[in-house]
Amino acid sequence: MVEEKLAPGARVGIVGGGQLGRMLALAGARLGLYCHIYTDRSDDPAIDVAACSSVAPYDDQDALARFVDAVDVVTYEFENIPAQTAEFLAAQKPVRPSPQVLALTQDRLVEKNFISGLGIEVAPYAQVDDAGALARAVAQIGRPSILKTRRFGYDGKGQALIRLGSDLATSFRSLGGQPSILEGFVPFRCEVSVVAARGLDGDFVAWDIGQNVHEHHILASTKVPADISADLAARAKDKARKIAEALDYVGVLAVEMFLTEGRGGPRLLVNEIAPRVHNSGHWTMDGAVTSQFEQHLRAICGFPLGSVRAHGPAEMLNLIGDDIYRWREFLAQKGACLHLYGKSEARPGRKMGHVTFLKENAQD
Amino acid sequence: MVEEKLAPGARVGIVGGGQLGRMLALAGARLGLYCHIYTDRSDDPAIDVAACSSVAPYDDQDALARFVDAVDVVTYEFENIPAQTAEFLAAQKPVRPSPQVLALTQDRLVEKNFISGLGIEVAPYAQVDDAGALARAVAQIGRPSILKTRRFGYDGKGQALIRLGSDLATSFRSLGGQPSILEGFVPFRCEVSVVAARGLDGDFVAWDIGQNVHEHHILASTKVPADISADLAARAKDKARKIAEALDYVGVLAVEMFLTEGRGGPRLLVNEIAPRVHNSGHWTMDGAVTSQFEQHLRAICGFPLGSVRAHGPAEMLNLIGDDIYRWREFLAQKGACLHLYGKSEARPGRKMGHVTFLKENAQD
Repeated sequence: MVEEKLAPGARVGIVGGGQLGRMLALAGARLGLYCHIYTDRSDDPAIDVAACSSVAPYDDQDALARFVDAVDVVTYEFENIPAQTAEFLAAQKPVRPSPQVLALTQDRLVEKNFISGLGIEVAPYAQVDDAGALARAVAQIGRPSILKTRRFGYDGKGQALIRLGSDLATSFRSLGGQPSILEGFVPFRCEVSVVAARGLDGDFVAWDIGQNVHEHHILASTKVPADISADLAARAKDKARKIAEALDYVGVLAVEMFLTEGRGGPRLLVNEIAPRVHNSGHWTMDGAVTSQFEQHLRAICGFPLGSVRAHGPAEMLNLIGDDIYRWREFLAQKGACLHLYGKSEARPGRKMGHVTFLKENAQD
Repeated sequence: MVEEKLAPGARVGIVGGGQLGRMLALAGARLGLYCHIYTDRSDDPAIDVAACSSVAPYDDQDALARFVDAVDVVTYEFENIPAQTAEFLAAQKPVRPSPQVLALTQDRLVEKNFISGLGIEVAPYAQVDDAGALARAVAQIGRPSILKTRRFGYDGKGQALIRLGSDLATSFRSLGGQPSILEGFVPFRCEVSVVAARGLDGDFVAWDIGQNVHEHHILASTKVPADISADLAARAKDKARKIAEALDYVGVLAVEMFLTEGRGGPRLLVNEIAPRVHNSGHWTMDGAVTSQFEQHLRAICGFPLGSVRAHGPAEMLNLIGDDIYRWREFLAQKGACLHLYGKSEARPGRKMGHVTFLKENAQD
């Protein structure tokens, strides 16, 4: 029998075994849940801390069948899961957020059409299926602009900048000639993200807005609260709520937005929806009453959502590659909360951990 | 080679697999440590969340040898480990806190003599080796008083109340005729505990003082900060520091004290030292920058100690036996942080979890 609302002791299947899966499993243990990681990599960092794990390819139907049989609900820590895998699992047990959400957020074009369809502003964009369409899109949107594959891009992968002198045919080929979209380059004052949660009963909560800095297309830091007015913060949360409700979303989601200066005042353009816990919400582990990881599990298990109250201002710094060797320096800093992901090799660009600085007041 | 100061990636052996071992293992994962649980019970709740575990009797030398070989440092989550086990492990790898600390705190008489020897007040006590000694002790200390076995008592086990009409021979036999001590019954205003940590380099930090309520000899709740003056709080922390320094202590310890009203003003009598993370420090998981579990690991690994700053007032409630069935009610409460230990059976008197209420201010 499939229960909609679960209880402590429930078995939560998590597809993906990276640091997000690891932090979900750690949060699950606090709530007395048994987390079962499904990953295709035997050295994934979530395995060490989860009650159970299955290591098999994401399209291995036998392994997936055993996995789904052993859990009460399924969630995921990354959105590039094959659609067929999500549907296969959803035929047996609740998958939250739903496979429909996954399908939508896996395709940049479908996602942008969906967001625009809600009356929410996004950066100008155009569909690009071939080099000819790219030329037309550039004529419409202008340069500089960014060509992105519709599917499977992350951390700057699958992107090409279209500058003044760029050869369009070469740019299109550099992404493998895949179906893509061209996005207008938006000069923004800052990038913010709303990390929010929607419960099984439709409750919606959003933490304080984070202000993000990216370096080399990878999130470097998140400062909370963002340097924006209370009115803008409320507008940002409203957009996230509208999106979550339209998707009948269950779980934690992050909505990335650009803050731009328009003639009529500041404008928020939605850039991307992440249908999962998000790097820009890591500060909640130490800086808020309920962490995004626990909140996600509360939502997908049908538990009441927890308080999102922040203890005070916070700043989260990602530890990328060699940054991890500064661990002792961070541990010695007043108010620093260090998290390391247990990855054996510190490759350049690899997220090895993060540190959250909790400040007594914004001047600290 | 034995390293005094370790680094993330180190392997931490934890003797004992109960909820304290579980919360230590979860805190270890955050720091990128690999926790290895050694327990004699295969269904212990720490096993599910630890990177490794060994299940064998506490005096199984082969299993202990394999365990100590596989770790870089050893600690423990309960103090009733056989002394020989601790010494066997300490011959191979650092055991922190030291086996000497363990030996001292395992014997109520030795512990009280040690504390008194530091010039720190304790309740009146006397050594009781036989029924005759009990009669002399009662003549000296009076009734009501409490007879306690010197070793292996916890949560009220191994205790007998000596009332006006109690037959002393019967009382002594009720504890199995073991070497005991008689303690004077102290009328106290409240019971407080100092949860503190001492690092490998001798740094000492103490969280805000907790005020404890016991029911049926088991901790029911801890309120932080305790309702005591700043001066008394400072005196309580000083006593804990004196004890930690005299023991050359490494790790987290708890010092339980009675607050009594004397003729010269309030007095603090030390009741007990717990050489480990302590139930009255659970609030630090949600209510302070650094939790007692992370702090203990920082100390025993030779890392810098973390900030003990509290986010605000907090109250921790133990969930004992059937209390666990109230989980949904607690999850729905504003500012409540629920922790369940993953124990399968809710037996009466069994600690099943705890909930910490974080208040925005003391009036909440």
